[in-house]
Amino acid sequence: MSTGLFVGRFQPFHKGHLATVNYALARVETLIIAIGSAQKSFEQRNPFTAGERMAMIRSSLDSSEFDWRRVMIVPVPDIEIHSLWTRYLDLFVPAYDKVFSNDPLTIALFKERGILVEEPPLLERHSLSATEVRRRIATHADWGALVPDGSASIIRKVGGEARVASIANVAERPDHKK
Amino acid sequence: MSTGLFVGRFQPFHKGHLATVNYALARVETLIIAIGSAQKSFEQRNPFTAGERMAMIRSSLDSSEFDWRRVMIVPVPDIEIHSLWTRYLDLFVPAYDKVFSNDPLTIALFKERGILVEEPPLLERHSLSATEVRRRIATHADWGALVPDGSASIIRKVGGEARVASIANVAERPDHKK
Amino acid sequence: MSTGLFVGRFQPFHKGHLATVNYALARVETLIIAIGSAQKSFEQRNPFTAGERMAMIRSSLDSSEFDWRRVMIVPVPDIEIHSLWTRYLDLFVPAYDKVFSNDPLTIALFKERGILVEEPPLLERHSLSATEVRRRIATHADWGALVPDGSASIIRKVGGEARVASIANVAERPDHKK
Amino acid sequence: MSTGLFVGRFQPFHKGHLATVNYALARVETLIIAIGSAQKSFEQRNPFTAGERMAMIRSSLDSSEFDWRRVMIVPVPDIEIHSLWTRYLDLFVPAYDKVFSNDPLTIALFKERGILVEEPPLLERHSLSATEVRRRIATHADWGALVPDGSASIIRKVGGEARVASIANVAERPDHKK
Amino acid sequence: MSTGLFVGRFQPFHKGHLATVNYALARVETLIIAIGSAQKSFEQRNPFTAGERMAMIRSSLDSSEFDWRRVMIVPVPDIEIHSLWTRYLDLFVPAYDKVFSNDPLTIALFKERGILVEEPPLLERHSLSATEVRRRIATHADWGALVPDGSASIIRKVGGEARVASIANVAERPDHKK
Amino acid sequence: MSTGLFVGRFQPFHKGHLATVNYALARVETLIIAIGSAQKSFEQRNPFTAGERMAMIRSSLDSSEFDWRRVMIVPVPDIEIHSLWTRYLDLFVPAYDKVFSNDPLTIALFKERGILVEEPPLLERHSLSATEVRRRIATHADWGALVPDGSASIIRKVGGEARVASIANVAERPDHKK
Repeated sequence: MSTGLFVGRFQPFHKGHLATVNYALARVETLIIAIGSAQKSFEQRNPFTAGERMAMIRSSLDSSEFDWRRVMIVPVPDIEIHSLWTRYLDLFVPAYDKVFSNDPLTIALFKERGILVEEPPLLERHSLSATEVRRRIATHADWGALVPDGSASIIRKVGGEARVASIANVAERPDHKK
Repeated sequence: MSTGLFVGRFQPFHKGHLATVNYALARVETLIIAIGSAQKSFEQRNPFTAGERMAMIRSSLDSSEFDWRRVMIVPVPDIEIHSLWTRYLDLFVPAYDKVFSNDPLTIALFKERGILVEEPPLLERHSLSATEVRRRIATHADWGALVPDGSASIIRKVGGEARVASIANVAERPDHKK
Repeated sequence: MSTGLFVGRFQPFHKGHLATVNYALARVETLIIAIGSAQKSFEQRNPFTAGERMAMIRSSLDSSEFDWRRVMIVPVPDIEIHSLWTRYLDLFVPAYDKVFSNDPLTIALFKERGILVEEPPLLERHSLSATEVRRRIATHADWGALVPDGSASIIRKVGGEARVASIANVAERPDHKK
Repeated sequence: MSTGLFVGRFQPFHKGHLATVNYALARVETLIIAIGSAQKSFEQRNPFTAGERMAMIRSSLDSSEFDWRRVMIVPVPDIEIHSLWTRYLDLFVPAYDKVFSNDPLTIALFKERGILVEEPPLLERHSLSATEVRRRIATHADWGALVPDGSASIIRKVGGEARVASIANVAERPDHKK
Repeated sequence: MSTGLFVGRFQPFHKGHLATVNYALARVETLIIAIGSAQKSFEQRNPFTAGERMAMIRSSLDSSEFDWRRVMIVPVPDIEIHSLWTRYLDLFVPAYDKVFSNDPLTIALFKERGILVEEPPLLERHSLSATEVRRRIATHADWGALVPDGSASIIRKVGGEARVASIANVAERPDHKK
Repeated sequence: MSTGLFVGRFQPFHKGHLATVNYALARVETLIIAIGSAQKSFEQRNPFTAGERMAMIRSSLDSSEFDWRRVMIVPVPDIEIHSLWTRYLDLFVPAYDKVFSNDPLTIALFKERGILVEEPPLLERHSLSATEVRRRIATHADWGALVPDGSASIIRKVGGEARVASIANVAERPDHKK
């Protein structure tokens, strides 16, 4: 009856993320998928809202045999005091026994608290990152193969391709608004 | 394939809330249960964390035949600019078609945006409020009958009775810390 | 060529405020009307947005002979650190020589900095307050005589009567959302 | 009786900004000039306070025949949730019918809401940017020709040249305070 | 070589606080006196700045034989997420072994973390509270006997009597600024 | 009976900082050492908490003859409005007569207020900076000679070497959490 925690920003949710979800579900009874930096969107590194990212994850997991009782998808905003972030996260999610993460700082912070951390194997790490997916979308390169069909359909439905491209332009403007 | 939205603070999740969830699930395909003031806890009006409230809701809905695919439970923090709150909420949840609410201001804010709002019937409004549940817990009165068994077991598991009582005391201290 | 500063929340802008504006304009060349708590609206004590309050002031001052060059209307948000508020205000407005205020704390804070403060005479202080205007609107009493016609027309145009009444109700709800 | 909205940071207000103001005033009855990032100053990209920027704009527009009734100059602070920024702006300004902007993201955000956006022609885009004005000030190059006389006199009056230069230095310190 | 922690708001530092400091110094080698709500001042319940409160404490402890190496006086601001406050406090102070507190919630929060808490005896609890000191100052009653001479001299030096009185008035104004 | 103010981030407290403290103590009766950016830690440029930095300073100053009455070590968090920072600092510390600083912006801000500023001589500026100390720690180079023994022992005690190294890695991750 164990519960796992998998934290990511999912900007967007790609096949590597899906592989980690499946890896974790093979090892725990219930999995909390925490959507980090939930308050961010319409930024270069964070184009999608938490609601859109939740829709991507649901759409990517969806199939007739999937047991939805086993998954909780929970948006978690950032906190200004970084070092308290794992404590803040704990306020947003039910109790968990184990963390799945490949991020060294996340691993360090949870280990320091005596919480069990497991590093799932990484799928084609260099080509399969959210940074690479965003780069391809912004440059009109082929990105569809990097994300589950569920993610791709949500990205298209919310006009994500145009959004990512227009945000990428902004940073190069000489005197943009913010 | 409609999606409904039900917003509450659920401090704690009581039988009136459960009745509204069931009312809404009879009318929409998918229901988003948004946990408002998600960042608050250990306060007199907000004793439980969002994670604890999520656990109460899950535990209260749990049964062998419940279809978990139909429900999303999503914590949503407050925003300092109240009048933008429904816009902020939209960033945290997938798209929805309809709102279930009995709160006049919530109703007004969503209607102003042209969003469909339905007022579910209220169950024994005066005795069945979260304020009354907290009052009974704080005064060691009988509160168990007001909440689903699932809520009661989570409240007990997290030491909620002692917590509600000790927070109630704080407000009466002559020079307490905050 | 002196510049004056008049600070208020203007929730809403009433005849007492207008009298102060005219009093000040008889004494300085240019008047900065600072709209305090600019970020607040849709709250019991702060029903109107800064933009609506600016519209009330402009509409109340409007006449063929009014010299608009002599007035600046500037929204100023609150700052969390109250004691720095006059310093923060200084960042939002051009330089000024003199403050018009009847508020003891405002007077104290500016005097402590060596800034000249003048207390304009108060018009029928007890009946002519924004609190009284809001109370009358919320209870459907006659409020029109307390505010300039310009204010009244903006309040009606933005649906202010219904808004003030619905916000007043919220505070009495046993378990409202915030 | 239309109202236009022109948003900029105006760090500082230069001749390109003035051209846009005049372009807009030829097309709308009233123009709201919103000073963005109003809370920022004494930073490399944001050296001037909102009050100083307001003084620059007023001084640049000033002439015996200018009709001050037609212009509102309104400081608007940033909001942490970028995607809600246009909604937040709406709280600070009276209602408007049309937006003047050359910023792709601003254009996209307003268009998404169905608000009319017009792109005014840009004056010598590469040499006439606020970034270029700040660069020239910081390097003691000739910057006066890029800004209206009104802006230049305010910049000099507030000691802006020394300020821009000293802030530029800060970023290169090995261990500066912030 | 043990280190103790004593948390208070010290608005102002009174003889009960001094008794607790002495009680604690008899039991630990080093004492951290944390000044809570450090960011607050010029408010009814929080009239004095953290710097003024620090000066009161130093002045009250001062004597030729006092060993200053044994005391650290540390201002700690509030954090919006109350339940993380003891974790936040830990970022501002060196490590400690034991907490001295009479506040039930503070006691509960530290005990939950397994930290040792000792409740020092309270001196004349009802007459000797900061609330009572502020009440007496605001009503021009005799307050000097409730605080150490060091506190009294700082309160007088910073004009604290006039300040407390003028802030008390503010709350009763019908339409005050904030 | 003069009081001096020395502001720094002390990430970590190195021999140059210690030299400035001694320089200042030779010129004023009491010295306030303000720890800036107190809320930051576990970040690349700010690895240590304010409490750890306070421990470093205390440990570096400690000796049998040191007069602890002459020093106050005070953590001061950042404020979002940079230009108000010196005003905000004033709320956290007792009154002072003079500032010791080598930072051009700090010097400019205090001088603008008419406060006396003295620039202490810098010790081997290029090799002796906190940036250099952090760089050496992160790259496992020899860093011990750059800091007082007191600092070094605290850094080792809190596991600072591993922390600095793991934070340095984070920035190079393709899709890290924040």
